[in-house]
Amino acid sequence: MSETPENRLAALGINLPVPAVPVANYVSWVRSGNLITVSGQLPLRDGKLVATGKLGGSVDEETGALAARFCMINLIAQIKAAVGDLGKVTKVVRLGGFIACEPSFTKHAAVMNGASDLAVEVFGDAGRHARSTVGVPSLPLDAAVEVEGLFEII
Amino acid sequence: MSETPENRLAALGINLPVPAVPVANYVSWVRSGNLITVSGQLPLRDGKLVATGKLGGSVDEETGALAARFCMINLIAQIKAAVGDLGKVTKVVRLGGFIACEPSFTKHAAVMNGASDLAVEVFGDAGRHARSTVGVPSLPLDAAVEVEGLFEII
Amino acid sequence: MSETPENRLAALGINLPVPAVPVANYVSWVRSGNLITVSGQLPLRDGKLVATGKLGGSVDEETGALAARFCMINLIAQIKAAVGDLGKVTKVVRLGGFIACEPSFTKHAAVMNGASDLAVEVFGDAGRHARSTVGVPSLPLDAAVEVEGLFEII
Repeated sequence: MSETPENRLAALGINLPVPAVPVANYVSWVRSGNLITVSGQLPLRDGKLVATGKLGGSVDEETGALAARFCMINLIAQIKAAVGDLGKVTKVVRLGGFIACEPSFTKHAAVMNGASDLAVEVFGDAGRHARSTVGVPSLPLDAAVEVEGLFEII
Repeated sequence: MSETPENRLAALGINLPVPAVPVANYVSWVRSGNLITVSGQLPLRDGKLVATGKLGGSVDEETGALAARFCMINLIAQIKAAVGDLGKVTKVVRLGGFIACEPSFTKHAAVMNGASDLAVEVFGDAGRHARSTVGVPSLPLDAAVEVEGLFEII
Repeated sequence: MSETPENRLAALGINLPVPAVPVANYVSWVRSGNLITVSGQLPLRDGKLVATGKLGGSVDEETGALAARFCMINLIAQIKAAVGDLGKVTKVVRLGGFIACEPSFTKHAAVMNGASDLAVEVFGDAGRHARSTVGVPSLPLDAAVEVEGLFEII
């Protein structure tokens, strides 16, 4: 069996969810040339947030990293819906991570690794992305993490 | 009369302002290939901010959404200055919304809809964009909202 | 002697550092077509942060602007590592500035000018970029400033 992103997802026991559809005047992704910009994804699992609140407050680092991983699962679900075959993803160009946190929190990188690690587990070397990670005082629906993505496709 | 973005703006009673010129070592927009990146725009109307302060504090949701709408008006004014004819905009690729807010605020999406709705009112289906919306503790000049944009043009 | 970015750096007395290598599953930059996305850079000098803490708190504006300048030095070091010759940079397309600050802080633009000014000092007109500048409650490692960059190259 060849190593495809879909195979790697299966080996990880991850079933991609039906991707969330925005309820407002925007869309989950836009393609321009061979780049697809995916809207910021929240850590939804089965329609519920896996973590609300703030890092450095009620959310610990491990839970934050799990939330970031679910943001990445949702990004992958969106890109799968966009292109059909994840093998068409030639590069994860950029991930932007927003970590809801107390002003005293400083371990944003460890939280965001939950998303970065999954990107590489699923896409291999093509998953090695540029990233920016910052704290924010709050996110939509009190989500603990939000991650946006930019993907290059064939 | 054909449906053009300029006609739709007129029907909405919106006169595009003379776009703000940065007073520092940056510019309002940069073109690379058929993509134009527009600098983050503040909710300026006639040179004054329509909303300062924070959502969840002194700024209510309705005012925040109005501020986001003015950020979008200013983005459109910049892209109009860049390309001359708004009909050359083939896609609003991405909007990035930054909402100045209290840590307890969770309705960022409703605020950002003020920008997203106008994008679709003016550009139609080409205005359906990817977006990321996050809270921030403060913005330049105490603005309540800042929105940046990425546009695809012919 | 022709005016090259490398000459301008030398005239400014700036020795580009060995660029920081991420210790996690991401990379410092990704190229897609003629665009290079560089990961968010912290204000590291000789491996130490030149400013930690928050603007409007323990970090004054001048120190913040210096920190932004070091973020830009690190962005330039990354792009130099990516393309070898800085003369291949045809445009600094976008800088994204994140300023760790107290909620009452409003002078983010002055801080970010530390990065923008250096972009123009080094790249000349090609250095005039679009930018977005926002406040954040905290950044990785308690850094005072983080700047990400998008560059167009030949």
